[in-house]
Amino acid sequence: MRVDKLGEFGLIERFKRFIKLDSSVIQGAGDDCAVIKYTKDKYLLFTCDMLVEGVDFTSDENPYLIGRKSVAVSISDIAACAGLPKFCLVSLGLPKKTPVEFMDKFFKGTLDMLKRFKINLVGGDLSRAHKLTIDVSMLGVVEKRYLVLRKGAKVGDIIFVTGKLGGSIYGKHLRFVPRIKEARFLTKNFKIHSLIDISDGLAQDLGHILRESKCGAVIYEEAIPLDKAAKGIKDALYQGEDFELLFTLSRSEARRLWQKAKNKFIPIGEIIASKWGFRLIKKDGTRIMLKPKGFVHF
Amino acid sequence: MRVDKLGEFGLIERFKRFIKLDSSVIQGAGDDCAVIKYTKDKYLLFTCDMLVEGVDFTSDENPYLIGRKSVAVSISDIAACAGLPKFCLVSLGLPKKTPVEFMDKFFKGTLDMLKRFKINLVGGDLSRAHKLTIDVSMLGVVEKRYLVLRKGAKVGDIIFVTGKLGGSIYGKHLRFVPRIKEARFLTKNFKIHSLIDISDGLAQDLGHILRESKCGAVIYEEAIPLDKAAKGIKDALYQGEDFELLFTLSRSEARRLWQKAKNKFIPIGEIIASKWGFRLIKKDGTRIMLKPKGFVHF
Repeated sequence: MRVDKLGEFGLIERFKRFIKLDSSVIQGAGDDCAVIKYTKDKYLLFTCDMLVEGVDFTSDENPYLIGRKSVAVSISDIAACAGLPKFCLVSLGLPKKTPVEFMDKFFKGTLDMLKRFKINLVGGDLSRAHKLTIDVSMLGVVEKRYLVLRKGAKVGDIIFVTGKLGGSIYGKHLRFVPRIKEARFLTKNFKIHSLIDISDGLAQDLGHILRESKCGAVIYEEAIPLDKAAKGIKDALYQGEDFELLFTLSRSEARRLWQKAKNKFIPIGEIIASKWGFRLIKKDGTRIMLKPKGFVHF
Repeated sequence: MRVDKLGEFGLIERFKRFIKLDSSVIQGAGDDCAVIKYTKDKYLLFTCDMLVEGVDFTSDENPYLIGRKSVAVSISDIAACAGLPKFCLVSLGLPKKTPVEFMDKFFKGTLDMLKRFKINLVGGDLSRAHKLTIDVSMLGVVEKRYLVLRKGAKVGDIIFVTGKLGGSIYGKHLRFVPRIKEARFLTKNFKIHSLIDISDGLAQDLGHILRESKCGAVIYEEAIPLDKAAKGIKDALYQGEDFELLFTLSRSEARRLWQKAKNKFIPIGEIIASKWGFRLIKKDGTRIMLKPKGFVHF
């Protein structure tokens, strides 16, 4: 059997069951970051993301933007755990013929994004490769009281997103700003129950929250904020690479959030009992059952 | 200009000068691990290594051994800072056609090596790629008093290695055991001045110590322990992938080490003033000046 028959998540599940963790690990594989014991009141967050030419970007893309994206996706993972990014390593697999000028621009994009979030680039690795391959690993910290994972959603929670969805692959995926500020504002001021970043599409990523929290959800097409680049609701549901945050909180907290930051965060639906499944109410009032699918690598 | 004209180290130097670090970083890029402030008496160690099919291993290699090596090289980096490895992430770029059975064996090799050193595999990333690409990032800890870097060698120090060199590319590079135990024994019991793992070859890696410590060295061909797979002294000097440790300590500490652990660690030469350069005394007594060259990716 080939890996593409088993699928990305099938492969991950196949591996995960063999992994044993000791008590220093609060959260292993299966959330946006690993969460590790650190100090009395803080956790370490640890995450990595690999970008490959021809898969996550094309070779004729602006190298500055590729460099920028390569660290932004990991910063977004730290945001999805409500932490602050601190240190990163960049591993590069480079084709021999890569122009040095390309790498200069790539590196400028990387450093500008790191500087914006006060992240230390503390090292990396350089290898020869057939296609430009970038793997970034990032360390962050989060106060224990601010950490939010995928698994805390509760029936009755309101589901919010931090911005417009869909069509990111036409450009925004290279230019997005990771939602660190928003995540910190939310967890400092509200009781957030669950949190994830939308990297694989709304259906897939809300699906992760539902599976981890053992809940269902109903979302409303007319409430979902579409990016102007999106061609329709399907782009928001399945395309991915939006890198907006999705979070849930109780109805009373949602009301308070709405009063404090009207229109900054957009309610798109509600958490319901798992027996009701994962539903989309279309603009015409009809109901369709969603599958938690989206962008997968295989 | 292409990156292969600038060279691996040229490219790293080109990038490094733009990196700004804050006071939480004890050591950034340029040693085996980054060293980061942690607790009152400990530092965090942070390192990553990328392995690419066709560069670091061939596709017909035993997948168990590829999995094993992919984490062993990072464990060796932690050993080279005298720390203990604790947590790791594995990013995989997989060709679609990779057999699941290949990945099962790969993963078994990875987990067996991690288990041996009590390391938690806390997550990773999976991407499609043209060639199998593995990037491992590892977090370790080291007591402040045990940390040893490349830069502490002193004139008069004796240079030791932990084992046989050369010919590793004929097999040992897939089977080596990272020298964690040896590094811990050394730093707990002796005042070690400088430490590195030999990944690019004796000439290159001792060269790193000389550059960072602003020293020269004289090494003796007849003292350098050759692996039986090595075809000659050049394999030890320039081939790399031995993953033995090289360290220096004062003459009196070296004497004490020799008394306590005779033959376990092999003296191969001496640190001298930088004006005398980097010398090899051949078996016939002739002297040649060495260049700190070895395996480079470009």
